[in-house]
Amino acid sequence: MTVSETVEFLRENDNYLILTHMRPDGDTMGSASALCHGLRQAGKTAFLFPNPQFVDNHPWITEPYLPEKEFKGECVIAVDIAHPSLFSKGFKGSADLCIDHHPSNTGYAAKTLLKSDKASCGEIVMEVVKELCGGIDKTAADLLYIAVSTDTGCFVYGNTTGDTLQAGAELCRAGAANTALNKILFRTSSKERIKLEAMILSGFRYFHEGKTVFAVITNAMLKESGATENDLSDIAALPGRVEGGCVSAVIRENEDGSCKVSLRTNGAVNASEICSRFGGGGHAMAAGCNINENMEKSIELLAQAVGEALE
Amino acid sequence: MTVSETVEFLRENDNYLILTHMRPDGDTMGSASALCHGLRQAGKTAFLFPNPQFVDNHPWITEPYLPEKEFKGECVIAVDIAHPSLFSKGFKGSADLCIDHHPSNTGYAAKTLLKSDKASCGEIVMEVVKELCGGIDKTAADLLYIAVSTDTGCFVYGNTTGDTLQAGAELCRAGAANTALNKILFRTSSKERIKLEAMILSGFRYFHEGKTVFAVITNAMLKESGATENDLSDIAALPGRVEGGCVSAVIRENEDGSCKVSLRTNGAVNASEICSRFGGGGHAMAAGCNINENMEKSIELLAQAVGEALE
Repeated sequence: MTVSETVEFLRENDNYLILTHMRPDGDTMGSASALCHGLRQAGKTAFLFPNPQFVDNHPWITEPYLPEKEFKGECVIAVDIAHPSLFSKGFKGSADLCIDHHPSNTGYAAKTLLKSDKASCGEIVMEVVKELCGGIDKTAADLLYIAVSTDTGCFVYGNTTGDTLQAGAELCRAGAANTALNKILFRTSSKERIKLEAMILSGFRYFHEGKTVFAVITNAMLKESGATENDLSDIAALPGRVEGGCVSAVIRENEDGSCKVSLRTNGAVNASEICSRFGGGGHAMAAGCNINENMEKSIELLAQAVGEALE
Repeated sequence: MTVSETVEFLRENDNYLILTHMRPDGDTMGSASALCHGLRQAGKTAFLFPNPQFVDNHPWITEPYLPEKEFKGECVIAVDIAHPSLFSKGFKGSADLCIDHHPSNTGYAAKTLLKSDKASCGEIVMEVVKELCGGIDKTAADLLYIAVSTDTGCFVYGNTTGDTLQAGAELCRAGAANTALNKILFRTSSKERIKLEAMILSGFRYFHEGKTVFAVITNAMLKESGATENDLSDIAALPGRVEGGCVSAVIRENEDGSCKVSLRTNGAVNASEICSRFGGGGHAMAAGCNINENMEKSIELLAQAVGEALE
């Protein structure tokens, strides 16, 4: 569907239940809340499905849009969700409409508005709300700024285009409190995160003359720092920062002592091929796998596999 | 002067020598190089004054615009320089034109194009080059992207406005390689910086129930990590990241053992007033001073002064 067809669909229906994805981030939460706000501005009844993981990460983004008691809705909209397996925990049912930017979207919904060239779902919802409401108010601008900036690391990631920056400009001009939001989203860390980050940075493991950098997170480090899941956002960027590095990984100890690997490369090797050797997979530049060995053995095996790929 | 009057001035004159400021950053270097490129496109002779500190920090930005032998020029343009005391080392003379965005600009040049509402000088030079050359080519777009993004920490600092993001959008659409430039400017750290950062983070000093956070840099830490001046960019942001903090400082040991303080606050106290107690000064939100004591004593005195201000 086009944006205009989507707006027509939204005007024809009512009683919207809006879905976010598992482990919700600023894009799914900001986009869903902005859509909910826009639908209400347009005179519709709309609520978010209460994703139980909202409480983990900036719950204030979604709070005003949650129903007080159970709300079933008549029309379900999935926002920023590539596949039904990623639906919020607790939701049973199907989607009548999906608004998304993931190239991997499977077209599972009855109707889909997909723009896979967009860095964030927020940029698509922005177009929808603009047409639905005749403009972006301050509330929508804040919510959509959260969406756009989260998915681009505040306009620094490789997915940021002129269009993304243009969307950011429009949202700031519509009143988005970008300075305050940037402070909360990108410039605030818990003391526990600071402590963990110090340990991770001092424990970097270098291989292949510095071309390969591993960041290691053990259970003991989590315990000592007191860091939780919420303190781990964007950890993958840390080993990727090292000058001269081509391949970086975060190797995290699982509770059972085995290891979870997130591998990234600048294109020097194929991350997906390396991870597939351990039963994992993903994309050429970013992939993941589990290694059923302890930390030191996992580091050794992964370094060896990367070394062979580099040769 | 207006942008149009500046362009008229640039068309009337020739043989430009373009000045950058001491300890040159991406804004002064990118803006000066873009202006030099634009003047050459417009048929003029133009070179940068060879700032001896260019070699310290991304010299590739300015290299193509340096003269092979001494070039005196007929018309001197100061770019991103608030006061003649900040002229590049080695330059003797005065400025015929100044293009700047610092509110503190003293109007020292014969003619001045000042827009103090702009986050970066790059945004002003962009308008000048656009009018002078009838557009922004790929080279100018890259250079101006460096300028705009540097002064805003890639659109995350509090000086970023809708206009700044709009400028970024326009530069990306004109061909700026934002992904590659972001990687170089914001997502690359030397191993030495990583090592130093780990030490700084693990050595944070907390006071006043976490409202005050000090980052400490000793000569021993610099020696042990191998970090140099170039590895210290944006260090002040580290203690400012801590959740619940209102006042942050970087306290750096001088070679003689005394301490240099950079103090920042979110407005809870007046940084300039605190620093003035030690003979320093600055702005309400960011100020600096020297404390003629060793590190531990300096920490104690500064924490005490901040504590009194917080009460």
